[in-house]
Amino acid sequence: MSTMRTHYCGLVTEELLGQTVSLCGWVHRRRDHGGVIFIDLRDREGLVQVVCHPDNAEVFKAAEHVRNEFCLRITGTVTNRLEGTVNANLKSGKIEINASSVEVLNASVPVPFQLDDDNLSETTRLTHRVLDLRRNQMQHNLRLRYKVSMEVRKYLDNLGFIDIETPMLTKSTPEGARDYLVPSRVNAGNFFALPQSPQLFKQLLMVANFDRYYQITKCFRDEDLRADRQPEFTQIDCETSFLTEQEIRDLFEDMMRVVFKNAAGIDLPNPFPVMDFATAMGMYGSDKPDMRVKLEFTELTELMKSVEFKVFNSAANMTGGRVVGMRVPQGGSMPRSEIDAYTQFVAIYGAKGLAYIKVNEKAKGRDGLQSPIVKNISDEVLAQILELTKAEDGDLIFFGADKAKVVNDAIGALRVKIGHSEFGKKAALFDEVWSPLWVIDFPMFEHDEENNRWTATHHPFTAPKDGHEDMLETNPGACIAKAYDMVLNGWELGGGSIRIHREEVQSKVFRALKIDAEEAQLKFGFLLDALQYGAPPHGGLAFGLDRLITLMTGSESIRDVIAFPKTQRAQCLLTNAPSEVDEKQLKELHIRLRNEPKVA
Amino acid sequence: MSTMRTHYCGLVTEELLGQTVSLCGWVHRRRDHGGVIFIDLRDREGLVQVVCHPDNAEVFKAAEHVRNEFCLRITGTVTNRLEGTVNANLKSGKIEINASSVEVLNASVPVPFQLDDDNLSETTRLTHRVLDLRRNQMQHNLRLRYKVSMEVRKYLDNLGFIDIETPMLTKSTPEGARDYLVPSRVNAGNFFALPQSPQLFKQLLMVANFDRYYQITKCFRDEDLRADRQPEFTQIDCETSFLTEQEIRDLFEDMMRVVFKNAAGIDLPNPFPVMDFATAMGMYGSDKPDMRVKLEFTELTELMKSVEFKVFNSAANMTGGRVVGMRVPQGGSMPRSEIDAYTQFVAIYGAKGLAYIKVNEKAKGRDGLQSPIVKNISDEVLAQILELTKAEDGDLIFFGADKAKVVNDAIGALRVKIGHSEFGKKAALFDEVWSPLWVIDFPMFEHDEENNRWTATHHPFTAPKDGHEDMLETNPGACIAKAYDMVLNGWELGGGSIRIHREEVQSKVFRALKIDAEEAQLKFGFLLDALQYGAPPHGGLAFGLDRLITLMTGSESIRDVIAFPKTQRAQCLLTNAPSEVDEKQLKELHIRLRNEPKVA
Repeated sequence: MSTMRTHYCGLVTEELLGQTVSLCGWVHRRRDHGGVIFIDLRDREGLVQVVCHPDNAEVFKAAEHVRNEFCLRITGTVTNRLEGTVNANLKSGKIEINASSVEVLNASVPVPFQLDDDNLSETTRLTHRVLDLRRNQMQHNLRLRYKVSMEVRKYLDNLGFIDIETPMLTKSTPEGARDYLVPSRVNAGNFFALPQSPQLFKQLLMVANFDRYYQITKCFRDEDLRADRQPEFTQIDCETSFLTEQEIRDLFEDMMRVVFKNAAGIDLPNPFPVMDFATAMGMYGSDKPDMRVKLEFTELTELMKSVEFKVFNSAANMTGGRVVGMRVPQGGSMPRSEIDAYTQFVAIYGAKGLAYIKVNEKAKGRDGLQSPIVKNISDEVLAQILELTKAEDGDLIFFGADKAKVVNDAIGALRVKIGHSEFGKKAALFDEVWSPLWVIDFPMFEHDEENNRWTATHHPFTAPKDGHEDMLETNPGACIAKAYDMVLNGWELGGGSIRIHREEVQSKVFRALKIDAEEAQLKFGFLLDALQYGAPPHGGLAFGLDRLITLMTGSESIRDVIAFPKTQRAQCLLTNAPSEVDEKQLKELHIRLRNEPKVA
Repeated sequence: MSTMRTHYCGLVTEELLGQTVSLCGWVHRRRDHGGVIFIDLRDREGLVQVVCHPDNAEVFKAAEHVRNEFCLRITGTVTNRLEGTVNANLKSGKIEINASSVEVLNASVPVPFQLDDDNLSETTRLTHRVLDLRRNQMQHNLRLRYKVSMEVRKYLDNLGFIDIETPMLTKSTPEGARDYLVPSRVNAGNFFALPQSPQLFKQLLMVANFDRYYQITKCFRDEDLRADRQPEFTQIDCETSFLTEQEIRDLFEDMMRVVFKNAAGIDLPNPFPVMDFATAMGMYGSDKPDMRVKLEFTELTELMKSVEFKVFNSAANMTGGRVVGMRVPQGGSMPRSEIDAYTQFVAIYGAKGLAYIKVNEKAKGRDGLQSPIVKNISDEVLAQILELTKAEDGDLIFFGADKAKVVNDAIGALRVKIGHSEFGKKAALFDEVWSPLWVIDFPMFEHDEENNRWTATHHPFTAPKDGHEDMLETNPGACIAKAYDMVLNGWELGGGSIRIHREEVQSKVFRALKIDAEEAQLKFGFLLDALQYGAPPHGGLAFGLDRLITLMTGSESIRDVIAFPKTQRAQCLLTNAPSEVDEKQLKELHIRLRNEPKVA
């Protein structure tokens, strides 16, 4: 391979028996055994055992001084391990290196933790990120991440997609999420924004006849962070002209199958199931349902409109209210404590309680049901509940009754929670499979009740279904968009849409969103302008790479698939960014600090 | 290919004769000829001729209404062109499409300029960038750019390099160029900086055992812009552990040969010549000499120390002064006007004049020389000048005498200017070839006379030559670095170095640079820390992708190889970024504007 080394440590096998090799790597472990020093030397490909015999005084002396994480260059002969000392877990497990030279390339101070300690706090890990990155799991995660992005590139390259870079210093359009701003030095008082996505630029590239574009690129949102959010995140961003929604979905569905297979050996089903938004919300209370969970909502709103029980009745009759039941097969065995815990759980999502019925023995009617609420419900309605939910003896039915959003969020989350619980797994309510899903036919607009106006469900550049253009202004709530999300195991992997390619339709959407002509021109004039020059029909999709790798690796946080992530307080514990800057720098940028108390 | 189209316009050839095809694209030209309408339809693969006959009334009517840049879907039969109308310049030049259907996918308002107009101002082009990008040249440039980056990825992938993303929101270290800053909302009063390069992160990745890293990534420098500078630019950034300088150079030299060959069909020489920094400065006054130019400096400093002529004498005797001659073969024929023009040209670089001698007839001694300065120079020195410069009858010798920097900049630029001139080409002073060069053995430090201190020639993380570690603090000026630049045709394509991997050497360099321990800890503590944990020997290189593509495409400006560039005033004429932002945004970021007059 090079002057310094002939092989990677982890790849030395019995095929090299008798040969002299030079290896470079780190001391993973050193032990003294029967007067012989054994060093497990580690490089990116894995471990190899190095033996330093006392009969080679120089080697032995050097070996005596090495400590964990010293960086060494070792030359030696590949020999068989002694009978009984073979390590089947290592590729190099049948051999060892009989060292003829041990060179310390760099010493190491004692490390603050053992690399194979799996109980490190995240603060420790992020502070000592360089050592943390030496750990197996992080090595694996970042290599897999690379493999995935390379597989994506190969796939798209084969189909004629080309990677075109779009600007990082771009225009602030305060819609959607908060922008990261960059003050301009040359243009005093003005600011660039870091892109929330290359959305408009990729549309412009379609208008400019690039036909098929992709980019694996950083995007930025200055939002409050959660476990699956980072200030900067990476998008696999794609756009194509002259394809239908179905063709775009087929293309990227196939891409994902190929990528999962080639990068991680995972077989995704073919084809992915497709579900419209209304069905997803109706059956699962979510536009990204985890299809591994075998639980469904039963719609009870109509039924509950005339019941006496006020909790159900008032939810069923309020504007935008909803009542659902969710049958949990064999849930009757659930102890009271577990139900109580779920009651607390749904409260996080705003649910004021969690009604339930245990179905002990249907044949006994009301007497066969166990529940704090059955006394408020008529025999007739109880019978209908059982019929609609298809509940059997031994089942349990949970109920949600509130504003639809609360019901969907709370019972939707409960559905996933139960599915993933011990109980759920025992009761076969959870399939341990990779379960992708297309969710399609999103509404164009959502009603923002607080401000009494319509907002774009995806973004304002999404095309309406054919024939819905005329309703954009007259009946926005009824407009369905050519938008689609790819969901995997309950996570949104990516989403996209056919875009508006006609200026007059785009202008209509802006009007529906109460963006007047002047504001539209100011913010999106360049798009409206471009659409006038024979913009082609086009559409695309963007995948969240961080999330994709988090899923693939089964990581708990996207910070585990990013080399140098920020904390949930948007700080880098390694470099201590962000930090204070010189007054001189601020002056050059024509800004000053406000005198506000500092947040710690 | 899809429902909408079966082929790309530009790829329909006689192989498809008789077949029905559907094409999507833009009206490049429409003409009415003998009652028949001809449309040149354009897509990313090129043009095809579409014929709309009047006997198909519907088609003809539709065709009558189309105008340039309308976006069309056309279905028709592939037929032979009439004898004599074959267009050998087009792949599709032997055939035409006999249209059976013309569908207007989107109309276009009249375009503000003809796409094949080669005399557009840059302002027009950047304002209407979307149309500008439809032009052949821009389509070609961005496709080539993609090809290059993909070839780089393939090459590095084969060698086990992996792409790892480093942060865009990072720490400000006000050294070298000016940072772009990003105010933090969550951490009031603090700022992120956009990276000037991933230098330290890639070193950390080496310490973290990733062994071979690359990234094609955006970097940012808030500097005053020139033709070959942009606020954001793209670097092919590479780093590897356990390779020697020679091995790293060999690797990336081979990569460039492969990339040039595969992406652009260009054969670069094998091997690249190698020149040390001292020689390059001595012979060409530049650390990135354009080796296509057959002109060299002759060192005359020693010789001129004792001449009477004050211009030469004082330059030769001043600290850091230099006197050189540059023989221009056949330059005797240069008219006075051209010499005057060159005198003005070198003034840009600070030269106070441009002395010359025309060598008319050497045999005649002083009388055979034509020059305003020979009267000041002795016969003996004149003879030595002729001997040292190897001037022949008919040649001209230019002289530079000043501080070395002025001489190098001025005569170095003159060298290139003459080489590229009409005269230079006629006099065979210029080879029209691809001429790469390694420049190596850079000094570790440059002396900053103004502040009387040493600064890093490359950056403070560059390793000194073996054995030079001890001189870092005692004799910094004599320290040579393990640094190397790849030069092509006089442009710096990339540069890199072996990095310091020992903490004590790094600390020495910081001290040599007068960065005290406290400051070093504050700014680079995370690096010093990482180096202590067995950092491996490592080094790397970064190439400027924009510059590379500019060179490959023979473009005049790097703006011609970037989809959405900024002007030299760091503005985007398409989106009008940067722009003013809401007071609310500034407030959230804990900053306010200074009340300074705005720059227009």
